[in-house]
Amino acid sequence: MAPIADDYWQRAEFPVQLQRPLAELGMLGLGFEETAAFENSAVFRGWAALEMGRVDAGIATWVGVQNGLALGAIGVCGSPEQRAEWLPRLASAEVVGAFGLTEPLSGSDSAQGLRTTARRDGDGWVLNGSKRWIGNATFSDITVIWAKSEEDGQVKGFIVPTDTPGYVATKIEGKQALRTVQNADIALTDVRIPESLRLQGANSFKDTAKVLRLTRAEVAWQAVGIAIGAYEAARAYATERVQFGKPIAAHQLVQDLLVKSLGDITASLGMCVQVSKMLDAGVQRDEHSALAKAFCTAGMREVVARSREIVGGNGIVLEHGVARHFADAEAIYSYEGTREVNTLIVGRAVTGVAAFV
Amino acid sequence: MAPIADDYWQRAEFPVQLQRPLAELGMLGLGFEETAAFENSAVFRGWAALEMGRVDAGIATWVGVQNGLALGAIGVCGSPEQRAEWLPRLASAEVVGAFGLTEPLSGSDSAQGLRTTARRDGDGWVLNGSKRWIGNATFSDITVIWAKSEEDGQVKGFIVPTDTPGYVATKIEGKQALRTVQNADIALTDVRIPESLRLQGANSFKDTAKVLRLTRAEVAWQAVGIAIGAYEAARAYATERVQFGKPIAAHQLVQDLLVKSLGDITASLGMCVQVSKMLDAGVQRDEHSALAKAFCTAGMREVVARSREIVGGNGIVLEHGVARHFADAEAIYSYEGTREVNTLIVGRAVTGVAAFV
Amino acid sequence: MAPIADDYWQRAEFPVQLQRPLAELGMLGLGFEETAAFENSAVFRGWAALEMGRVDAGIATWVGVQNGLALGAIGVCGSPEQRAEWLPRLASAEVVGAFGLTEPLSGSDSAQGLRTTARRDGDGWVLNGSKRWIGNATFSDITVIWAKSEEDGQVKGFIVPTDTPGYVATKIEGKQALRTVQNADIALTDVRIPESLRLQGANSFKDTAKVLRLTRAEVAWQAVGIAIGAYEAARAYATERVQFGKPIAAHQLVQDLLVKSLGDITASLGMCVQVSKMLDAGVQRDEHSALAKAFCTAGMREVVARSREIVGGNGIVLEHGVARHFADAEAIYSYEGTREVNTLIVGRAVTGVAAFV
Amino acid sequence: MAPIADDYWQRAEFPVQLQRPLAELGMLGLGFEETAAFENSAVFRGWAALEMGRVDAGIATWVGVQNGLALGAIGVCGSPEQRAEWLPRLASAEVVGAFGLTEPLSGSDSAQGLRTTARRDGDGWVLNGSKRWIGNATFSDITVIWAKSEEDGQVKGFIVPTDTPGYVATKIEGKQALRTVQNADIALTDVRIPESLRLQGANSFKDTAKVLRLTRAEVAWQAVGIAIGAYEAARAYATERVQFGKPIAAHQLVQDLLVKSLGDITASLGMCVQVSKMLDAGVQRDEHSALAKAFCTAGMREVVARSREIVGGNGIVLEHGVARHFADAEAIYSYEGTREVNTLIVGRAVTGVAAFV
Repeated sequence: MAPIADDYWQRAEFPVQLQRPLAELGMLGLGFEETAAFENSAVFRGWAALEMGRVDAGIATWVGVQNGLALGAIGVCGSPEQRAEWLPRLASAEVVGAFGLTEPLSGSDSAQGLRTTARRDGDGWVLNGSKRWIGNATFSDITVIWAKSEEDGQVKGFIVPTDTPGYVATKIEGKQALRTVQNADIALTDVRIPESLRLQGANSFKDTAKVLRLTRAEVAWQAVGIAIGAYEAARAYATERVQFGKPIAAHQLVQDLLVKSLGDITASLGMCVQVSKMLDAGVQRDEHSALAKAFCTAGMREVVARSREIVGGNGIVLEHGVARHFADAEAIYSYEGTREVNTLIVGRAVTGVAAFV
Repeated sequence: MAPIADDYWQRAEFPVQLQRPLAELGMLGLGFEETAAFENSAVFRGWAALEMGRVDAGIATWVGVQNGLALGAIGVCGSPEQRAEWLPRLASAEVVGAFGLTEPLSGSDSAQGLRTTARRDGDGWVLNGSKRWIGNATFSDITVIWAKSEEDGQVKGFIVPTDTPGYVATKIEGKQALRTVQNADIALTDVRIPESLRLQGANSFKDTAKVLRLTRAEVAWQAVGIAIGAYEAARAYATERVQFGKPIAAHQLVQDLLVKSLGDITASLGMCVQVSKMLDAGVQRDEHSALAKAFCTAGMREVVARSREIVGGNGIVLEHGVARHFADAEAIYSYEGTREVNTLIVGRAVTGVAAFV
Repeated sequence: MAPIADDYWQRAEFPVQLQRPLAELGMLGLGFEETAAFENSAVFRGWAALEMGRVDAGIATWVGVQNGLALGAIGVCGSPEQRAEWLPRLASAEVVGAFGLTEPLSGSDSAQGLRTTARRDGDGWVLNGSKRWIGNATFSDITVIWAKSEEDGQVKGFIVPTDTPGYVATKIEGKQALRTVQNADIALTDVRIPESLRLQGANSFKDTAKVLRLTRAEVAWQAVGIAIGAYEAARAYATERVQFGKPIAAHQLVQDLLVKSLGDITASLGMCVQVSKMLDAGVQRDEHSALAKAFCTAGMREVVARSREIVGGNGIVLEHGVARHFADAEAIYSYEGTREVNTLIVGRAVTGVAAFV
Repeated sequence: MAPIADDYWQRAEFPVQLQRPLAELGMLGLGFEETAAFENSAVFRGWAALEMGRVDAGIATWVGVQNGLALGAIGVCGSPEQRAEWLPRLASAEVVGAFGLTEPLSGSDSAQGLRTTARRDGDGWVLNGSKRWIGNATFSDITVIWAKSEEDGQVKGFIVPTDTPGYVATKIEGKQALRTVQNADIALTDVRIPESLRLQGANSFKDTAKVLRLTRAEVAWQAVGIAIGAYEAARAYATERVQFGKPIAAHQLVQDLLVKSLGDITASLGMCVQVSKMLDAGVQRDEHSALAKAFCTAGMREVVARSREIVGGNGIVLEHGVARHFADAEAIYSYEGTREVNTLIVGRAVTGVAAFV
């Protein structure tokens, strides 16, 4: 990805030719027995997200969607048959998946605010509504759509083949962050889905949250990767750029920026390792991944800003290696739970009182 | 500018058709008796920069270059004849100017690090060297070039018509901030300039600094404008966007972001008013405009980040009114003196000790 | 105050011998025609608070209580007879006053949470309840007590002579900030007060708020003074303390701290000037003084922390001039409206939505 | 310590009666085979510092001096005979030690700026000079004094019994942080010390640095403990204090402060664990403990300030559990290497360029 990252970013396109090679590397399906290419741990998977983020947050996000959200949703909420059918095909990237939760009028309040509906109709379901910001969805083969049952008011999940009549995905234009990732607005108009494509284990919003908890921690890892990528570019620049007769790295004010960033990176990495060890040990809870996501993305934002500062005027062009990270960080900061929502998830856990509304 | 700002920004082009109308509004030449369209003050001129920045930092920067730097350099360092010839033509935008100080290897240390040379040759001068980041220079008619005399080692200024043989300007591509502004790399190869185009009052780097002090304060005003533009967009979004059953503006965490921003904006504006009053009163010194530039651009950076945060995922597309300001802020933060250089200018003034090296 | 400030602070005593001299200087009663020693403005009064805070926040707070709160409450809410009787005596410091609003269980929510009661009894009133944190109240001659009428549920004010039976004030011990100021817990047990001592113009909590708006802006000024005092001490130390063969002021990291502080101070001062000009012009509203209080005290907190840092290990003893300011800043930060409450007052004004609960 | 901590702090006295019990718990000498009460690791020792800091930074500092600095200096730089003689006596607290490095004119630049001299005289040495801020030194039985040899200009260490003629220790008064710890100014006038009390393994300043690296990491742990202590007190207050009809913990603004603090604490703790694991693995370098000290004490400072803020006006008295931590944090922030010095140690490591001067 490294040699082509800036180019694809600038053109706002995704390098689809990398999907299969990523699968062949074993980067997909690592979290499930059926598809894991080798023995691994949550710490390993997180570190993989970090290394991808260090190069390009776009490729890391593609993996996050394909693997964490689409494959993850079926892995966590699918029946044995559904898992058997879809997990291997997603893990090989034969099938590309997306995950449709967020809506135009519902982001942070997905639990309550979901407006897409699922109506029982004979032996199948009819979906209506709209989704927004759905990653990979301009070229996905299937999209997991979350909708509220008109019958019981509960949130259910559906594997929607994207060639189903009534399903229309439109690319979101004008993005200034994570330009490599293709996000879509999805319109669902009387989309008919058989019961066999309803996720059999998804009976309420809580089942959605199980998927998000896993990916949220990986976003924290990815944020550390972005921070490292920007820090390394800035440090390299600082040791080469000469002003006042010496490398700017020899100035206390520049060392101050570098060392503060190194502190944020080191501390965030430690938090990521710990939260993934807790998953490996079976004791991770929502508030743990929420804290990691909020803290590490906030630290990342500081690090990319300091790195941009170190590169000075040159820092606003792509070629010096920080501008793309600086821009992408904003998407990472807000997706998979804003700082506000994650703060309130943790706040509820430590005080015993919910303050969402 | 408002209706077309996002469009030109996205295409990385400058709306040249606005140059004459801006001149007709009287926005150029306000600082000099010969060209001022009406009686005005430094506070007025600063506030004009603020209002332009509030809409678009690109148009504000075009004025900053045309008026503050090009016209300003000739106004401050030109002979009466030079002022008579060039000021009116720049004030009417009949002639577009640029200002060539920064070089590929010299930014913060322009005073010592300047490498472009001027060699006396008969009744003229021969310029050699290169410049970087020169705003408006892809379409300017003249560019003020600062070069070190091979004779006396002093920095001198030259009005260089851009059709002079040996002068080549190349647009800098891949900018992620201030995309509307056209910056160029300039190569100067045996460019011959008559003595009549040498700025007669520019005898050392200190004369350059006189120009920069004036524009630096206006950059502070412009930064406040950018902050206001982003704040207003975020506030509007917050009062319209509903989550958890009420506008997000009703959440304490969102009010916290808005109020911190309002504090930064109000305080920065007060500092700008004061620093311009000091110019009007004839007592403004370098450290005053340096403090205003460093403080107000740092505050702007916080405000645009908070505004981007409030708009959430939607904040990364242009249409919600913060993404452009967020991106442009980085250029403003670093140009006309980085935070580091301005900090050390103020630091020298308050401690009596220079710490640049 | 300067030569004795550290000594009284350390002993947690107030220099009562300075009360009359402060009155003779004209520092009391400046806001009211009857008692103003000379023509003055809100800007002047604010600047006086700044100059006192620069030396000692304790003396500034004494004036704030005597003049802003006690004299101010009678000036704003008193009948002509009450004003005639009490204003001159308070302005001369013949009578020392205090202001009893905060209660053990009610601080930020004074409007709703007030528990002290006033019961009509013949031609007078009977007060019951308790107050906490009441400044000057260990030695005040009168204390303005705010209580809720059992009859109409409205908050009313009473001038309570401190020798009235049933009134007991106990000094709060163990304070680590603003040690010079004497705060008391007040117990009110069947305290009988004649109708003539009820403030005739105080008919609801809104009348209390009128008094607080005035003093809140003066606390902002005082905070700037504390910041200046700490900054000046740190700068002096930095230019004298030699490490690595030169004054620490010659190090970039120290200049960075000084210049950030100077920015905060200059910006905060500009905001104070503006908010007081708005009072002089009759257009100041609650949100203006709330913003000034929240912003300037937050800036002060940063400045005193940086100043403490500059003085290093020596910064924890009183003699280097920052330790007292550092400690006192915490009281100023929280009194007369916490940052949270002032944020929500401003937030309501800019969004149109209240978010207090 | 918990029940008496506030009381001793307020009186600025140290509870000497706790010295032996601490030794009996095994808290002293854990880092050396001769004296370790049980098998342990650097992580264990760090966590012990954390738990002490959580209760009282004064007791943690006493251990840091007795164990880390005094016993540590002899353990690292002593001959086998010196170790055999002194380590057990220090580990049992039979002998109380202190560590004399800092001088009135030399703190951050101890390596170069040391002025205390050691003159060879027959079979012994004569020490002259002064020391400042020496912890435990008002009651220590021995003080390790670092002095520059007049012969070879190298820094050497001496075990100085405090009853040696010419040695005078005077308590430093007026401390506002870490009041429980007794610091002394030490005057050394022709203090004669036999060669047998010169640390045989201390041949240059680098040997001093070996001791400091170990203690610096433990200060980072201690800082996390202080942060936890303050956070826990603030959280308890927030769940009990009712305003606007509900516990203040139910307000988003308060949860924001708590969650930011929890992030800082968790991240800092992860960094401490890692840096101590590196010591256990024999790969810890100066820059590692310097980064941990700088980062964790900066985070602590934020946490204690937020905790103080949550407790509001009540936060300035000792009884609510944050005022003492808030005050003590300042000493921890500056001792054992200021933020500036530790930043430059790390900066040198990551850039390859020293920027101390």
